[in-house]
Amino acid sequence: MVHSSSSAKHPWRARLYRQLEPGAWPDQGLSPANRWICALITVAVLVALLETEPAIRVGREPWFVAFEWVVGAIFLLEYLIRAWVAVEGARYAHPVWGRLRYLGSFAAVVDLLAILPLFLGLVGMEALFMRLIRVLRILRLARLGRFSKALRELGHAVRLRQFELYVSFGLAFLVLLTSSIMLYLLEGGVQPEAFGSVLRSMWWSVATLTTVGYGDVYPVTGLGRFFAALTALSGIGIIAMPTGIMAAAFSEAMQKNRREKD
Amino acid sequence: MVHSSSSAKHPWRARLYRQLEPGAWPDQGLSPANRWICALITVAVLVALLETEPAIRVGREPWFVAFEWVVGAIFLLEYLIRAWVAVEGARYAHPVWGRLRYLGSFAAVVDLLAILPLFLGLVGMEALFMRLIRVLRILRLARLGRFSKALRELGHAVRLRQFELYVSFGLAFLVLLTSSIMLYLLEGGVQPEAFGSVLRSMWWSVATLTTVGYGDVYPVTGLGRFFAALTALSGIGIIAMPTGIMAAAFSEAMQKNRREKD
Amino acid sequence: MVHSSSSAKHPWRARLYRQLEPGAWPDQGLSPANRWICALITVAVLVALLETEPAIRVGREPWFVAFEWVVGAIFLLEYLIRAWVAVEGARYAHPVWGRLRYLGSFAAVVDLLAILPLFLGLVGMEALFMRLIRVLRILRLARLGRFSKALRELGHAVRLRQFELYVSFGLAFLVLLTSSIMLYLLEGGVQPEAFGSVLRSMWWSVATLTTVGYGDVYPVTGLGRFFAALTALSGIGIIAMPTGIMAAAFSEAMQKNRREKD
Amino acid sequence: MVHSSSSAKHPWRARLYRQLEPGAWPDQGLSPANRWICALITVAVLVALLETEPAIRVGREPWFVAFEWVVGAIFLLEYLIRAWVAVEGARYAHPVWGRLRYLGSFAAVVDLLAILPLFLGLVGMEALFMRLIRVLRILRLARLGRFSKALRELGHAVRLRQFELYVSFGLAFLVLLTSSIMLYLLEGGVQPEAFGSVLRSMWWSVATLTTVGYGDVYPVTGLGRFFAALTALSGIGIIAMPTGIMAAAFSEAMQKNRREKD
Repeated sequence: MVHSSSSAKHPWRARLYRQLEPGAWPDQGLSPANRWICALITVAVLVALLETEPAIRVGREPWFVAFEWVVGAIFLLEYLIRAWVAVEGARYAHPVWGRLRYLGSFAAVVDLLAILPLFLGLVGMEALFMRLIRVLRILRLARLGRFSKALRELGHAVRLRQFELYVSFGLAFLVLLTSSIMLYLLEGGVQPEAFGSVLRSMWWSVATLTTVGYGDVYPVTGLGRFFAALTALSGIGIIAMPTGIMAAAFSEAMQKNRREKD
Repeated sequence: MVHSSSSAKHPWRARLYRQLEPGAWPDQGLSPANRWICALITVAVLVALLETEPAIRVGREPWFVAFEWVVGAIFLLEYLIRAWVAVEGARYAHPVWGRLRYLGSFAAVVDLLAILPLFLGLVGMEALFMRLIRVLRILRLARLGRFSKALRELGHAVRLRQFELYVSFGLAFLVLLTSSIMLYLLEGGVQPEAFGSVLRSMWWSVATLTTVGYGDVYPVTGLGRFFAALTALSGIGIIAMPTGIMAAAFSEAMQKNRREKD
Repeated sequence: MVHSSSSAKHPWRARLYRQLEPGAWPDQGLSPANRWICALITVAVLVALLETEPAIRVGREPWFVAFEWVVGAIFLLEYLIRAWVAVEGARYAHPVWGRLRYLGSFAAVVDLLAILPLFLGLVGMEALFMRLIRVLRILRLARLGRFSKALRELGHAVRLRQFELYVSFGLAFLVLLTSSIMLYLLEGGVQPEAFGSVLRSMWWSVATLTTVGYGDVYPVTGLGRFFAALTALSGIGIIAMPTGIMAAAFSEAMQKNRREKD
Repeated sequence: MVHSSSSAKHPWRARLYRQLEPGAWPDQGLSPANRWICALITVAVLVALLETEPAIRVGREPWFVAFEWVVGAIFLLEYLIRAWVAVEGARYAHPVWGRLRYLGSFAAVVDLLAILPLFLGLVGMEALFMRLIRVLRILRLARLGRFSKALRELGHAVRLRQFELYVSFGLAFLVLLTSSIMLYLLEGGVQPEAFGSVLRSMWWSVATLTTVGYGDVYPVTGLGRFFAALTALSGIGIIAMPTGIMAAAFSEAMQKNRREKD
């Protein structure tokens, strides 16, 4: 990435830019600043997870509010600094339009969304949705440095095999449909609550074909059990296909990644 | 495919033929007309699935009947047009006998069966059976274009390994039989409802060997649990075999397909 | 196999010998006589399975007894004929000692055990045990012809990798032991019936590590669930090992079999 | 390993050292003495497992106490002999400091911890914790001889792929988090006990993604079941990755081991 010539005039801004912009960091991996931000995001996500648990939250609300304010303030500060140093990059070199264009970039919008929950108040569901965006923010940093390349190659390998995946998912869907229709016909009369429509049978079918088998619904008639057994057995073959394709794509992408690293 | 010389005299029929007969379409993939038919079949199948759900159907029956009539009319029209244009193909060139032979072909019979539910009335089970044939109709179109080749190769790859599959299914059946007999002997006295015969034990055995594990039946005695644990553990090895064979066959067929495409 | 010179004097005995002794049949696969015997054994096993089901047996006992007598008589006749023709083989050529040595061979003893249930009466468990031997008899014939080679190679391939299997089973057992001890410590106090000893915890551990998950027992405390989740996740890795080894051994044996067949 | 020259003066000590120190045993595998110790440890662990079961323990306490004393005495004797013969090794050659340094080595501390339960009395939990260390002791011996090399190579192969494992575990965790959040949002209101927080939803998520599927908690709303089905299906892909990586690493390590053995 080419940097604007202004870095000589703003040594501090240039230094911060190298710390915050993963692409500008000269060494392998993430800069210390980005490591701390990653750690803080992880902690904030963990706290947000714990906060949803009533047994943990009740009686400790003030602590969670305080933590939220501290984290929000740090994220806001980081957001402003990122906007200030953005002009160091060749893409956003213009002092005004460059910064505005930076603020409109996907990464900056995600950053802003991650600060918002603070101002929305900590009201239940909406706040949780915002915390979800904080999770996205981890992904944003995870995209960078060494990670990004591995994931990009994995995505590429999966895309190369997308036709295989379509065929295998198509076959899996047909087996799912067939077994749902069979169980609907055979068990629908006896257990209308569980198998009274093809849609309801599908819940059982997915649980059986993926071998999860909750056991909340299961056939009770002889023929129903016979076709359920066939479904469970055919599920092995059907599931083997996407598994094999995904595993091969993954191992291929990783070998390529390692070969290039050497 | 060689086309009859009559196409010059019937430019519209020839054009429709190219649109409807997948083999006659000069480009890759499906023609626009066949794409619309595919989409309509998919929608009709989805509606048929939703219609089985009482929570969706009750109170909306007129809408479903109207939809059924519209879809039925379109399929009937398509069926008649296909019969009219069939003579464009070299195989069915004779104006009378060619069309009759076309109507007797597998694809045309499936098409006719897909229209029938309309005239049978929408009476429960029978209609559902007919809708199942509409699902088959998707397969008929899916057979064509790019899909058909991939599936034909997959079928070929599986057939090449059919002996391996027989051996592994045979071994799996012997493990199934052995564990059913053991559990029948060990748990049959304590839980006659669940393990009172080898057939009944098989329901448990299939659920355990496929690792579905509904949990509706399970051993309660010490020895019964010991053999159940052995069954669950040996299930891993037994299931690994068809999985490995199917995955290898699938990946082989796909690689071959890709190599030929390049 | 070298045949005794007596075959010229007993053309019928020689013909029966070729029909009954799989190694003496000149063509590929099984002789017509052995095919019929295989079919009869399969039918007898299926009937024996169905007979254990009270809903099928009750009221039809005379039919089952009659079937048992017919099958027993045929098996007895076959046993006597096999003993008579055994002297055709070079190994049992002596008219008296050869036949006695044949009767003491493993295959002949299994044959005799498969006839015994008839004379033991059809008394519950003991008869079932004898029918189990009839299942072994299927295996005895399955050993022959084309099957035997494939299974022998599979056994050889598995034996080649026995050290890998020992290591992976050892690791699996250590994970099983560790998770059982953890759950015993964490859940034993709350659910003494399900986790009150390491042995009892093992039932849960096997169900979890094999991903069967009956759901008859499961942790309820927070820490218990945390370690249960770790167990379920580590189960994936542990199970991957024997699966991979077995699948590789199987596919290797099959490829070798196919290469030799070409 | 270089041995001190004192072995000529203490032929018995040198002989015991060769028997007890796996690295000093000239032949393949373990020495007879170490085999007996391995067997005794296995028996002691099995007895400790059985002792946790009340149905076995109650009424037989004196036998277990006696067994514990015998085992403890043998282990104590072995510990003292090991300390006495340690000076035969070049690393611990000094008669006083060498022995003290040996007693501070990891293996010797584990040995001592395995004797302690005897003197702690056999009081419930603490004793069990000590028995756990006896399990570790098996590992210590299992590390040696032929095993150690295979496990070291397996560990090396896994470490070579640690980046792949991190990526796949990261992806698995993101799917786990996403499905937990979705189910929390969709089912939390209806089933607060099971899905009332993201932490609680995670218990369900782990059981579903690993396809264990206990069935103690499961979604009941339409949308909840739809996302549960997506979770179960995506679990197949997510689980395929570490499985593939681990299986490949294991088979690689084993092939390398076999090649070197030839």
